[in-house]
Amino acid sequence: MAVRLASQWELKEGVERGDVAVVIDVLRCSSTIATALHNGALGVIPVKTLAEARALHRKNPNFILAGERGGVKPEGFQLGNSPREFTRDVVEGRYIILTTTDGTRTLAGVSGARLVFVASFLNAETVVEASLREAGRLKAGITLVAAGRMRGFSLEDHLCAGLLASRLVEAGAKPDDAAYAAILAYKQAEKDLLGHVRRGAHARGLESLGLGEDVDYCIRVDVMAVLPVLEKSVDFPYGVVKPAKA
Amino acid sequence: MAVRLASQWELKEGVERGDVAVVIDVLRCSSTIATALHNGALGVIPVKTLAEARALHRKNPNFILAGERGGVKPEGFQLGNSPREFTRDVVEGRYIILTTTDGTRTLAGVSGARLVFVASFLNAETVVEASLREAGRLKAGITLVAAGRMRGFSLEDHLCAGLLASRLVEAGAKPDDAAYAAILAYKQAEKDLLGHVRRGAHARGLESLGLGEDVDYCIRVDVMAVLPVLEKSVDFPYGVVKPAKA
Repeated sequence: MAVRLASQWELKEGVERGDVAVVIDVLRCSSTIATALHNGALGVIPVKTLAEARALHRKNPNFILAGERGGVKPEGFQLGNSPREFTRDVVEGRYIILTTTDGTRTLAGVSGARLVFVASFLNAETVVEASLREAGRLKAGITLVAAGRMRGFSLEDHLCAGLLASRLVEAGAKPDDAAYAAILAYKQAEKDLLGHVRRGAHARGLESLGLGEDVDYCIRVDVMAVLPVLEKSVDFPYGVVKPAKA
Repeated sequence: MAVRLASQWELKEGVERGDVAVVIDVLRCSSTIATALHNGALGVIPVKTLAEARALHRKNPNFILAGERGGVKPEGFQLGNSPREFTRDVVEGRYIILTTTDGTRTLAGVSGARLVFVASFLNAETVVEASLREAGRLKAGITLVAAGRMRGFSLEDHLCAGLLASRLVEAGAKPDDAAYAAILAYKQAEKDLLGHVRRGAHARGLESLGLGEDVDYCIRVDVMAVLPVLEKSVDFPYGVVKPAKA
């Protein structure tokens, strides 16, 4: 099976090819989704705009309204996009409406794919195992989608793609050029992953907002055995991310 | 000064910002241009389409008509795009009309930039030194443009960008996330650059056309002190690449 790293203009190809799509937005959407589901949230509903999020919340006032713009919690929202806010006492047994700058847009962009997982460093191995299993079952390829690339390249998403790709290739998958380059970068960076990610634009932006602890939190590998999968829904335009059996 | 690695949708930004643009198409356009100028060609005229190339040749029958489609020399062309064909006895004192799938399109795409250099592994250090000098003089940034990325990501162009960026950063330039990732990949690959490039789609394609020797030829670092610069021209829509004083 093939493993590809998609840029914006290759995303559509991956969906049309019937690939298993793996969405990566390390800082912080993917890490927040993994954490919320790990802590017992029933599902995360990705939406693109603040207006969509607020409208959905008016219809479903028992859902938690969460997200960010420019890294900051929008007015009237209950939670921002810091995974450290999504603790068990806050999210257990609840649905969460989430809108973020890159991550939820990317989820919306791949919502037509036959199968979509959400990956971060936190749940890397669980997603790798499920991707291999499902791509094998479906006789499909795997497209890794680095969310940061929708609006420009993101170092931490590229490195996370490199980690996932390196494990997929070890298991026999064939990388395309972009996945191969990401593997090289990851292997060079893996001994000091946090140090390298901190050099990136996104981590520096979070530092400057006083959210540097989120970077430390998100750059931990294989600490949660949670498998977020995007399920289609008649109620929500881009589906709901739910915890699947890993 | 900033050094950025441009993808297709960031290219325009770099031109508008007034950056020095460095076009990289290792296999094989950049390597062919470096070789031709090193061997005494007066200039290389990049054009986008076969029709443009043929029309220009009819007007200038003393120019050499060269290029490729699908890696192969088009009908009626005098040379293909193999740098090994551009020997001194063939090109010295001549102008060359060149049309290739990615490289010359990328040159056309950046022809509005204030200053455009053409880089390959062959002439890496010469381009690095000139870029630092000119970006300093112009108080501008440097945008590395990996041609392969216009139609998808290219491993060898990414690694060449990583080599250039690593040297620019050693000299004090600040990398963006994409340039930083390319540096990581290059550092991981540099001990066996040819081996890694051969894993890429482009090198495998050339091998399958019996052009594997072109890959060996192009993956040699700092063997030519030639500085190809794109000069504007009233006669040619995208200018002429000429050898500048290094």
